[in-house]
Amino acid sequence: MERELKIGMIGAGRIGRLHGNNLAHSVPGARLVSVADVHLTEDMKSWASELGVKNITSEPLNVINDKEIDAVFICSSTESHAELIMEAAKGSKHIFCEKPIHTDIAVIETALDEVIKAGVKLQVGFVRRFDHNHKKVRDTVASGRLGKPHIVKVTSRDPEPQSIEYVATSGGIFMDMTIHDFDMVRYLSGSEVTEVCAYGCIMIDSRIEKYGDVDTAIVILKFENGAIGVIENSRAARYGYDQRTEVHCDKGCIQVGNDLIDASMISTAEGVTCEKPTWFFLERYNNAFIAEARAFVDAVLHDSEPLVTGRDGLMPVYIAKAAEKSLKEGRSVKLSEVMA
Amino acid sequence: MERELKIGMIGAGRIGRLHGNNLAHSVPGARLVSVADVHLTEDMKSWASELGVKNITSEPLNVINDKEIDAVFICSSTESHAELIMEAAKGSKHIFCEKPIHTDIAVIETALDEVIKAGVKLQVGFVRRFDHNHKKVRDTVASGRLGKPHIVKVTSRDPEPQSIEYVATSGGIFMDMTIHDFDMVRYLSGSEVTEVCAYGCIMIDSRIEKYGDVDTAIVILKFENGAIGVIENSRAARYGYDQRTEVHCDKGCIQVGNDLIDASMISTAEGVTCEKPTWFFLERYNNAFIAEARAFVDAVLHDSEPLVTGRDGLMPVYIAKAAEKSLKEGRSVKLSEVMA
Amino acid sequence: MERELKIGMIGAGRIGRLHGNNLAHSVPGARLVSVADVHLTEDMKSWASELGVKNITSEPLNVINDKEIDAVFICSSTESHAELIMEAAKGSKHIFCEKPIHTDIAVIETALDEVIKAGVKLQVGFVRRFDHNHKKVRDTVASGRLGKPHIVKVTSRDPEPQSIEYVATSGGIFMDMTIHDFDMVRYLSGSEVTEVCAYGCIMIDSRIEKYGDVDTAIVILKFENGAIGVIENSRAARYGYDQRTEVHCDKGCIQVGNDLIDASMISTAEGVTCEKPTWFFLERYNNAFIAEARAFVDAVLHDSEPLVTGRDGLMPVYIAKAAEKSLKEGRSVKLSEVMA
Amino acid sequence: MERELKIGMIGAGRIGRLHGNNLAHSVPGARLVSVADVHLTEDMKSWASELGVKNITSEPLNVINDKEIDAVFICSSTESHAELIMEAAKGSKHIFCEKPIHTDIAVIETALDEVIKAGVKLQVGFVRRFDHNHKKVRDTVASGRLGKPHIVKVTSRDPEPQSIEYVATSGGIFMDMTIHDFDMVRYLSGSEVTEVCAYGCIMIDSRIEKYGDVDTAIVILKFENGAIGVIENSRAARYGYDQRTEVHCDKGCIQVGNDLIDASMISTAEGVTCEKPTWFFLERYNNAFIAEARAFVDAVLHDSEPLVTGRDGLMPVYIAKAAEKSLKEGRSVKLSEVMA
Repeated sequence: MERELKIGMIGAGRIGRLHGNNLAHSVPGARLVSVADVHLTEDMKSWASELGVKNITSEPLNVINDKEIDAVFICSSTESHAELIMEAAKGSKHIFCEKPIHTDIAVIETALDEVIKAGVKLQVGFVRRFDHNHKKVRDTVASGRLGKPHIVKVTSRDPEPQSIEYVATSGGIFMDMTIHDFDMVRYLSGSEVTEVCAYGCIMIDSRIEKYGDVDTAIVILKFENGAIGVIENSRAARYGYDQRTEVHCDKGCIQVGNDLIDASMISTAEGVTCEKPTWFFLERYNNAFIAEARAFVDAVLHDSEPLVTGRDGLMPVYIAKAAEKSLKEGRSVKLSEVMA
Repeated sequence: MERELKIGMIGAGRIGRLHGNNLAHSVPGARLVSVADVHLTEDMKSWASELGVKNITSEPLNVINDKEIDAVFICSSTESHAELIMEAAKGSKHIFCEKPIHTDIAVIETALDEVIKAGVKLQVGFVRRFDHNHKKVRDTVASGRLGKPHIVKVTSRDPEPQSIEYVATSGGIFMDMTIHDFDMVRYLSGSEVTEVCAYGCIMIDSRIEKYGDVDTAIVILKFENGAIGVIENSRAARYGYDQRTEVHCDKGCIQVGNDLIDASMISTAEGVTCEKPTWFFLERYNNAFIAEARAFVDAVLHDSEPLVTGRDGLMPVYIAKAAEKSLKEGRSVKLSEVMA
Repeated sequence: MERELKIGMIGAGRIGRLHGNNLAHSVPGARLVSVADVHLTEDMKSWASELGVKNITSEPLNVINDKEIDAVFICSSTESHAELIMEAAKGSKHIFCEKPIHTDIAVIETALDEVIKAGVKLQVGFVRRFDHNHKKVRDTVASGRLGKPHIVKVTSRDPEPQSIEYVATSGGIFMDMTIHDFDMVRYLSGSEVTEVCAYGCIMIDSRIEKYGDVDTAIVILKFENGAIGVIENSRAARYGYDQRTEVHCDKGCIQVGNDLIDASMISTAEGVTCEKPTWFFLERYNNAFIAEARAFVDAVLHDSEPLVTGRDGLMPVYIAKAAEKSLKEGRSVKLSEVMA
Repeated sequence: MERELKIGMIGAGRIGRLHGNNLAHSVPGARLVSVADVHLTEDMKSWASELGVKNITSEPLNVINDKEIDAVFICSSTESHAELIMEAAKGSKHIFCEKPIHTDIAVIETALDEVIKAGVKLQVGFVRRFDHNHKKVRDTVASGRLGKPHIVKVTSRDPEPQSIEYVATSGGIFMDMTIHDFDMVRYLSGSEVTEVCAYGCIMIDSRIEKYGDVDTAIVILKFENGAIGVIENSRAARYGYDQRTEVHCDKGCIQVGNDLIDASMISTAEGVTCEKPTWFFLERYNNAFIAEARAFVDAVLHDSEPLVTGRDGLMPVYIAKAAEKSLKEGRSVKLSEVMA
């Protein structure tokens, strides 16, 4: 029988429990053996017990320093990610870390250095790479059957705006929401972004103005391989989570639409009605979360490169910084300007 | 906390394990506590152990007579269903039974009588009723918003023919394959079938002729409510499992297509290509199997009528008998002729 | 320059004017030189004058016997078709005749004999064969790339029922409406129908009962090449003219949907809405009428077999007779029974 | 009877003949009475004769000064448009002019002044406004039922690049190709563009570099009403003419895809194939050209404002200038910078 990977979960909030359930039920070769949360609740305890977890603690280091553990899932609050990565690396644990690693580039770089020094695996939680639709676009482009990519397009709209409290501390639309799309264009194009120009406006909730944020944005991008691209975001698509990607290439174009709630069509005198996209990321990326965890476990068990690396965690932060600068200064910004 | 339903599984083949996994991981309120299979293998044992099942046996009666058990899932071979239903009913266990109950109507009726006498719940495994697509059609029709149904259509094609060995003992296309569609038209129309006319032919594998079977069939139907319908079957749709339903009503029409492997569209000089339907019933009805098990557990825990009753298990067998007679005699056959 | 075909139009009602306009504007090589209508109105006269027609008459024989004329379009009332065909054949004019030739088979046969004797071309107005969608199905099947056809399906629904006055003299649903679909299954399958079974009901307008008619029907069919098929009709699809065809073959399936009013999709919290099919046959088959007239002119100018022959005009009438008999007698009817 | 508009055609090349055929056959109330082309050929003569045009000349002024003429269609080469507009205005003729009026803004303004002074109607040939798809988007947005527009998107790709000779004198991608899309975003948004940022690259044919042109471009735009937008262009979509528009609004989103060659779907083991978009603008905008001419004739006959005004002819030229400047200078450019 194949070796089993013993995993500790740090952070048992919504996303931690999602990963925990998947590890327990849907990821062959994984065994969830301990759970830590600095704000441990009774609910978390009974959830973990149900899954057969014996070691339940409010101290993340108890998990990291547990000799039995092979790997950790870092699903705690964003500001703790980098430090926990460094601790885990020092403890020679393999690491799955939710995105973003941090919003401060220097901090990310220090953490990534530790990972390299320790020689452990790190996979960053850009889950959309594991979605069947976006993956199909990437695989088709990477296969070369459509020739060189010319134009990369991402449409990414949330069904409803975050609360104003959330916005206040979110780090802004580019760091919070578009960061997924910045990862996506790198993934789809197979190339690095070199320059961006961002336009943004407030169309949904004027209260966000005082935080210097926008809720509607378009970013155009240049890539190292000569292609160009565009990302388009809205915080409020009343019909649901709209996640479409498209790459136009030399010999043709591949595009993916949304997964719909069902495949129905109702025709009446008033018109023809189909279903909406699945509501939000938990529905749309449900299977992608499972595939993501499986990929991590596979990478560790078979000693292969994780499909989302530390560098993949770092680059979108640079792009977000450049987009922020572009929006603020009303001009096109080269990535080299923010990487200096 | 809500009461937990303790369940015993009888039959640990492909479909039994499918249900077992769902009960263990995806059905709140259910606990799989014992597993029986008359041909118990090491594989079955280790599968059951993994799920935390303690009572693993080759004797179904050990499960049925276990006092701890509230309900059984009968997933053994078809010919054993009716007898196990009767045993379970006598043992006052609630029953989920895979379809068909039996191919002999008298045997089914005897089993159903036992169920009624015992006052236990029985749900028959017509899983397609729990598919999001077909359910949407049924719910829309039942809501009355499209008015009275006029025409009920079912397209049902398997991706590849069964082995010739399977065909030899399958009971024929109507009893083996169309039986799902006979259930479907009752479900969608909300009415009973009164008459059928069946045409069939052998287009795929001429070896089935000696078993008196066909591999391609069309059945037209009349319903008690005045509507008419048509079912169309093929044993070999090379592009995958094709499962479409449609009801044309007074004020409009609802139709559902297939769930596709992904939502991609590739456009080149050669044409525009989309993905195929999900391969076969395990992929297409994956979520429906979960919903089916949840519905059974709910019906027992909340003492409500199961969504697929014993009568729902019986009626499609009558329709299949009428279709067989129609094909054989080259004429339209009233259901009353086979119910006499 | 290529020879010009001089054409006389008999019947200047809706369908005659449609053909007349096409011949004048959209059919290279055609010249409309005379128009006859037994109920000639001022409107017809000014319409014909506008098109530059000089010879405008209330006497069809004036057109048929005009030496200048090469061909006639017979667009008068149905009961006059056969006689006009015979007159035109005697006058050595090529003939385009609207469907149906007649509802009496003996009359049709006599007319077709005259055509053969005269050695003129006859094309019957089954316009749907020239629709880009249905033609694509037929051409794909005929190419053999999908292998042998197994199942032929036609969905054909009108947007609204005819007036009760029309129904009274229409000849019944099979002769009036399904006749197009009977032609279609022959066209798509490339094979002759050998047997039918028809179910029908009255779901839309109970007043038609006294005429022995139905408004909703399903007909299953057997073909000479071993395939089977189904036609489904409704007189009232409130969402528009629903014209879908499908052929399931050895290696796959081709299906065509409807042409829609536009390619829009509107997504809101209430759902996703697309446009309806184009309203009725004038919209849906607009381009097909042009292609049909062009094909006739081509066949005459290049002395080739018309794409819809006299036999193609005759066979659907046999099938309609068999369907009527089946509905009346409640049994499957072989075509040989009505051909004897 | 309604008054008839007598029209003179200036320029009998491809687009002139297209309009001429439409005026002759498909535009009620229009009569094409004279045709001028400075390079008059025998072909043009016989084409015009066929349509019943009596006055055929190589001198445009013969048309403009013809007292019988009410209106002119200017379909000659681009550099002659402005002067012919001025001549026609002086001659008190209503004017339909193909786009663009000119590439020099001062020249356009002078011409428009003449039109205003003369009090004649001018409609500019932005034909896409009359396409059923784009018009549906515009009408839906203008109706207000989706609330305020937030994001306006245009995808516009040609099926194959122009010849290198054409590129040499085309005026560049923004003035030649994107100009239609600049018109489209004004039309869809109902608002003026205030700022643009353009990225472009050469992906298809490196020979265009010496003309300072690009063949792949993305332009983001800001609108007066606060919305933002993006236009995406490629000179080579090997699968055909790709013309999609989309407006995301407060309450939802409307998008339109392409008209396809037919509505077929072929499913085999290799995949599911649909048809490509109609090949190029002549196929896609065939009906739009008719609607455009009808709208002009209506506007003149009923003395209403043309649906595409002189200002509509001017504004896209400003936007194109700003886009050119943005691409050249690598920065965002306000429209006021090029309007000064």
